[in-house]
Amino acid sequence: MDEQRSPESPQQPSVVVVGHAARDLVLRAGSLPDAGGSAAVDERIERLGGKGANIAVGVRQLHPSAAVALVAALGDDAPGESGRREAVAAGIDVSLVARRGGTALLVDLVSGEGERRLLEHVTPESQVTTADVDAAEAALAGAHVVVLQLQQPADALVRAARIAFEGGARIVLDGAIEGDERDELLSVAEVVRADAEEASILAGVEVATRDDARRAAEGLLGRGARVVALSVPDEGDLVCWHGGERFLPHVEQRVVDPTGGGDAFVAGIVTGMLLGAEPGRIGEIASQAAGSTVQRLGGHPELSPPVEEG
Amino acid sequence: MDEQRSPESPQQPSVVVVGHAARDLVLRAGSLPDAGGSAAVDERIERLGGKGANIAVGVRQLHPSAAVALVAALGDDAPGESGRREAVAAGIDVSLVARRGGTALLVDLVSGEGERRLLEHVTPESQVTTADVDAAEAALAGAHVVVLQLQQPADALVRAARIAFEGGARIVLDGAIEGDERDELLSVAEVVRADAEEASILAGVEVATRDDARRAAEGLLGRGARVVALSVPDEGDLVCWHGGERFLPHVEQRVVDPTGGGDAFVAGIVTGMLLGAEPGRIGEIASQAAGSTVQRLGGHPELSPPVEEG
Repeated sequence: MDEQRSPESPQQPSVVVVGHAARDLVLRAGSLPDAGGSAAVDERIERLGGKGANIAVGVRQLHPSAAVALVAALGDDAPGESGRREAVAAGIDVSLVARRGGTALLVDLVSGEGERRLLEHVTPESQVTTADVDAAEAALAGAHVVVLQLQQPADALVRAARIAFEGGARIVLDGAIEGDERDELLSVAEVVRADAEEASILAGVEVATRDDARRAAEGLLGRGARVVALSVPDEGDLVCWHGGERFLPHVEQRVVDPTGGGDAFVAGIVTGMLLGAEPGRIGEIASQAAGSTVQRLGGHPELSPPVEEG
Repeated sequence: MDEQRSPESPQQPSVVVVGHAARDLVLRAGSLPDAGGSAAVDERIERLGGKGANIAVGVRQLHPSAAVALVAALGDDAPGESGRREAVAAGIDVSLVARRGGTALLVDLVSGEGERRLLEHVTPESQVTTADVDAAEAALAGAHVVVLQLQQPADALVRAARIAFEGGARIVLDGAIEGDERDELLSVAEVVRADAEEASILAGVEVATRDDARRAAEGLLGRGARVVALSVPDEGDLVCWHGGERFLPHVEQRVVDPTGGGDAFVAGIVTGMLLGAEPGRIGEIASQAAGSTVQRLGGHPELSPPVEEG
C-alpha cells in the first residue's frame, strides 16, 4: 500500500468535485461525410468523460496523494457501470456518484484537420441534484478544496457552495452561471475559471482580447474571488489576482483535440492550490496540464505531477 | 410453444444470412454543429445493427415461422453481448455468430432536415471469414434461402455460395462485388438486389435512370440471375425477370432516415420467395418493407407479415 494514498491519513488533502459524468465516445475520421454520405472512422475511444469526472481524474493524476471524491450521476446501465469502474481504477472515491437512468453520451467528432464537433446527449438523470449534494454533505464540509463545475442545476450548486463555505473549504468555480446564483457563488469562491464565452456571461462584458479579459477579471475579483483565470481566444490564459497578473500563452503545438483542455486546466488549479503555490504558479501548472491534454484525442487526461520550481 | 416456430418442424422454411453485424448508434440532432461547435442530441437509439443482422431480423418479422440463422461476428465485449441478446430476442439462431475482438460501431447522424450521415467503424474482426463459413456449412447446405450480403470478404462469400449452391439453396445477393468472384456469384444467384451505385459496379454501366436500370438488369439476367431488383435514384425500384418487369415507385412520404431501407427490401425479397410469390409480387413485398423502415429513425426494422393478395 502506498502510505500517501491511505484515506486514513489526516494529512491527506481532500478534494470534492461536483460536476457532470458521462460516457465519452471519440470518433476520428479523415473527414466528415456530406449529407447522404458515409465515412470510415479511423480511431474510436470510448470511456468515462464529462467535465466533473475529467477534473477529478486530472487532480488524481497531478496530485496522486490527494483524496478525490466525485459528486455526479452515472446511469444505471452498462456504460454507467464501466464508467464507475474506470473512476475507481483512477483512484476516485465514487461513493457519492449516484446511479440512475441512462448515462449521458458525449460524442466528440474529430476530423483529420483537427476540427472538433461535439454532439451531446445529456440525460436529465445525469444532472446533479440537491439530493445528491445533501448525500455529499460531510465530504463537502470536510474538504480542503471543492470544485463546482457550473454546467449543473443552480439549486444544487448553491447548496453545495453553502455547505463547502460553511465547512471552510476553498471553492473553485469552473464555467458560467447567470442570475442571483452567480452573485452568491462568486461571493464564496476563491478561484474562478472561465473560457472567453463563459467569462462574458459571468462578468457581463464581451471577452475577445487580453484587455477584455483583464477588465472581466477585475470585475470578478471585485465580487469576491481572489484568483480569476480567463481564456483569451487563440492566445492563451490570463490569471489575475489582487495586485498582479500572469499571461500564459497557448503552446505552439498542433492541437489534436481541444476537448478536455479546460477540465485539465481546472485540475491544475486545484493541484496548485493544494501545493500552496502562488497564483502565477497555479496558472502555470494549469496551463501545462491543459496543453498536455489538447495534444491527445479525447478529453480524458493523462497528466503527470508538476515538477517543483528550482 | 408456438408449433410453427419449432426448429424440429420439417415444414419450417430455413434462411441463412451471411453479412455484417454491428452496434448501431443513431443520434438525431436539430442540426449538426459547425467545426468547433456543439449541438444537443434530441434522440439516441443504440441497438443491434449491420446489414446482415438487419436482414435477418427483418425476415423473422415478415415471416415469423421461418428459421433464420445469422452468419456474422460480434465483438467479445459488452455491445457484442447485448447485440447477441437482441438477436436471440428477435428469434434469430445465433449459434453461427462468432464472438471476437471489438464490435463494429455504425453511427447514424440524422439532422432535423432528414439528412443522414454515416460514420462507420468497421473492425477487421467483425468481417465474416472463411472459417465462419465453414462452421456454418451444414446450415448453408440445408437452407431454403441463403442471403449473401456482399460487403464481406470475397473469399468467404464465394465459399458460402458454393456450399449453398451445392446444397440446393436459393441464393440472394445484396450489394456489389468486383472481379472474378462477381461472375461466380452471379452464376449461382437466383435474385440480385443492388442500389444504383452497386448496380453500376455489378453491371459495369452507370445507373441513373430507369432505362439505365433496365439495361443493367438485362445484363445481370444474362449472367445467371432470374430476378434482378435495382434502385433508380429518387424514383423507386425496378424489378426485372425474364419476360417481365415491375416498377415500384418510392412512397410519397417524408423519409425520416433512409438507413435500413435496403436491408428491409432484401428481407422482403426473401419473404416473397418463401411464400412462393411471383417476381412482381416479391418486389411489392420488398418495396413495402423498405418504405416502412425509412419512416423510422435507425436501421432496425419493425415489420409486419405481408397481407396476402385477395
